[in-house]
Amino acid sequence: MFTIKDLEKAMGYTVQCMGDPAQIAFDNVKSVEEANQHSLCWIAERNSESTTLFETCKANTIICSNKFQYHTFPNKVLIPVENPRLSFLQIVRSLFTKPIEFGIHPTAQIHKEARLSDKISIGPFSVIGNCSIGENVVIESNCHIHDDVIIGNHVHIMSNTNIGGNGFGYERNDKKEFEFFPHVGTVIIEDHVDIGANTCIDRGTLGATHIKSGSKIDNLVHIAHNVVIGRHCAVIAHAMIGGGTTIGDYCWIAPNAVLRDGLKIGDHAVVGIGALVLKDIPAGETWIGSPAKKYK
Amino acid sequence: MFTIKDLEKAMGYTVQCMGDPAQIAFDNVKSVEEANQHSLCWIAERNSESTTLFETCKANTIICSNKFQYHTFPNKVLIPVENPRLSFLQIVRSLFTKPIEFGIHPTAQIHKEARLSDKISIGPFSVIGNCSIGENVVIESNCHIHDDVIIGNHVHIMSNTNIGGNGFGYERNDKKEFEFFPHVGTVIIEDHVDIGANTCIDRGTLGATHIKSGSKIDNLVHIAHNVVIGRHCAVIAHAMIGGGTTIGDYCWIAPNAVLRDGLKIGDHAVVGIGALVLKDIPAGETWIGSPAKKYK
Amino acid sequence: MFTIKDLEKAMGYTVQCMGDPAQIAFDNVKSVEEANQHSLCWIAERNSESTTLFETCKANTIICSNKFQYHTFPNKVLIPVENPRLSFLQIVRSLFTKPIEFGIHPTAQIHKEARLSDKISIGPFSVIGNCSIGENVVIESNCHIHDDVIIGNHVHIMSNTNIGGNGFGYERNDKKEFEFFPHVGTVIIEDHVDIGANTCIDRGTLGATHIKSGSKIDNLVHIAHNVVIGRHCAVIAHAMIGGGTTIGDYCWIAPNAVLRDGLKIGDHAVVGIGALVLKDIPAGETWIGSPAKKYK
Repeated sequence: MFTIKDLEKAMGYTVQCMGDPAQIAFDNVKSVEEANQHSLCWIAERNSESTTLFETCKANTIICSNKFQYHTFPNKVLIPVENPRLSFLQIVRSLFTKPIEFGIHPTAQIHKEARLSDKISIGPFSVIGNCSIGENVVIESNCHIHDDVIIGNHVHIMSNTNIGGNGFGYERNDKKEFEFFPHVGTVIIEDHVDIGANTCIDRGTLGATHIKSGSKIDNLVHIAHNVVIGRHCAVIAHAMIGGGTTIGDYCWIAPNAVLRDGLKIGDHAVVGIGALVLKDIPAGETWIGSPAKKYK
Repeated sequence: MFTIKDLEKAMGYTVQCMGDPAQIAFDNVKSVEEANQHSLCWIAERNSESTTLFETCKANTIICSNKFQYHTFPNKVLIPVENPRLSFLQIVRSLFTKPIEFGIHPTAQIHKEARLSDKISIGPFSVIGNCSIGENVVIESNCHIHDDVIIGNHVHIMSNTNIGGNGFGYERNDKKEFEFFPHVGTVIIEDHVDIGANTCIDRGTLGATHIKSGSKIDNLVHIAHNVVIGRHCAVIAHAMIGGGTTIGDYCWIAPNAVLRDGLKIGDHAVVGIGALVLKDIPAGETWIGSPAKKYK
Repeated sequence: MFTIKDLEKAMGYTVQCMGDPAQIAFDNVKSVEEANQHSLCWIAERNSESTTLFETCKANTIICSNKFQYHTFPNKVLIPVENPRLSFLQIVRSLFTKPIEFGIHPTAQIHKEARLSDKISIGPFSVIGNCSIGENVVIESNCHIHDDVIIGNHVHIMSNTNIGGNGFGYERNDKKEFEFFPHVGTVIIEDHVDIGANTCIDRGTLGATHIKSGSKIDNLVHIAHNVVIGRHCAVIAHAMIGGGTTIGDYCWIAPNAVLRDGLKIGDHAVVGIGALVLKDIPAGETWIGSPAKKYK
């Protein structure tokens, strides 16, 4: 059972409670609806509904927002914080997740000249080409990391994902048949990048496809050859980024967004869900629709 | 060569034929265009075209609709039924498909504490975490079923599919960098659910992502954390269901439909092909378009 | 270091240079921006920008278009050709790519009755059913080629791709529950077809799903049961082709295009990026938008 001490250690500072901190005792995290007495919960906002939530929630320990005044609830300890969701996730990460078990699964196929750090976890049936992989990297099962790919530190790649495969580069010859343009470029994945399952990131035709530090890619995303994704971007499920498109820092590419090839997307841009982007987007703008236009 | 006896056994009742039942002799099922003399075929509707189909089809045994009057065709036996397609599939399933061969492929990686029934088929290179799997379940090759997932009976999961991976849960911190929200929830797959290839079903953040009994999921579908899909729904290729969205029973989610997070879709709702759904859909309504609106 | 002789051998004819052919010396291919002295580069068009490109590019050997007049650049050799991109790719393919290493990886699971040519490369963890595969075929890792599939010669299939799985064929019975329509058809892949990663091509219900010679399919594409794709077509990332749709020869299906089931798309048709196609497209037309309409 975790107590106020574990909670403060996870949060990194002394918390101010409403209620008796000695009453804090939890061994699980649940949603408000599913909580039992020994759950830790969080309630983000205060409105007429949230007051009811505090009353009906069975958990005796609740993270809440410090922006509101609450009355005390019998047998409950409230912990008001600046960002309830963020504090909650820090606690969950600290107390309820297992550390990475480093090691290469015996079935994984590793190229004999691959340059891998010792602090790496590679799952069953993954195929690692002649590439370079840093520290604290997890590659789940059935992935294919092709030759020449460079992966930094603190990277997590989920199952069945392909990085560094040939891009879709064909040129019709004079018989209108396709000739394949061999891809001699690579893929660079910087630090703190997460990549979902069944996602494809193609190698550059000549230069590199480049995912910069802190960016997070979801499941079933297609990132074509020579795309550049800036730092701390999110690219969400089923998004498609066309060849050579460059995305700035801190962008948000919503699910099923489609960005044609060769675009420039400025820093802090937001592309809406299902948007079809056919033009460059200036920094800081939000574009939605099909074809996408600036959201007023 | 199958005869009238096999056919009646497969259909479960005594059939009324037009033509001599003793003439029924088939050893294959084909489309009308590709049929030979010993094919079993079906023709659904009657119109000027279908009359020609009966004449040109080479099969001597044809399932057809009992809603129409037909004249007899020389050397052909017609079997009029209520739903020709359904009767045909029952015969195909009964006479032309192999029973499941139970067994776990020696290459599959099974967690030592996984709770698996004896009547299960797990294909090569699949990774089964510490989860629970019922009877008459087929998991094809190169799948990843993560820890904590609960799978019922009569479930079929095609190759390269991921169930129970972490959802895309990130919160920007005060430096605008992403913090990962660890996912401690799970996925529940009820009985008689089929799941296609290269599909991803993420675990719940805290509670469960839940696919209820009889629902069918196609290839390359993304189902985010905490989605609930009701009973007897179809979710077709490339559909994307955003986090926390709840879909009722008997719904039809057409290919490439995109449902944003947090929606409520009522029972018997239909979402059209390529629809972008941004609002709740009341029960029984059909919504199409981008953004989706009620179809009059 | 490659010289004029290697270059002419790769191109198959004697080239006309602007500058001294004896100066040609390259050991790598790069983009114009990343080139060093010993790079081979190509510049396609001539405009005010391209003149600057010729000056700033550090490569001493540049493939360019024979449609324009250039002045000479010191220390550079220009090679004017009809189609610079095509000539460049022929050189890259000839000089910078490795030949296929034939062989079946020891981990691959091959059906004992599969009919495979000797000149085949099958990667780790791929599962090959009772099917037929021709010469000069590469199947990368973690693929599943189901029973009955027929694959021709010079075919390349990237990782985590599924060919010949059951299509999504369900019929609601009188309880509104789904009955599965067993798929007893197959998939035929003709010569010179390339298929990307994490793509699904379902088998026909009764007849065949058919990809004709020279067509190229990208990553994360869904091709449903009984689709026919003509010769020399491109089907690009995240496209979805509904069941039974027939596509003619020389078509271009752009990324994220969605084609409903049962359509007929004529030869040389172009479907735009993100287009939602609900009607037949006559030969030679370009359709864009959602729903797609003819582009004037």
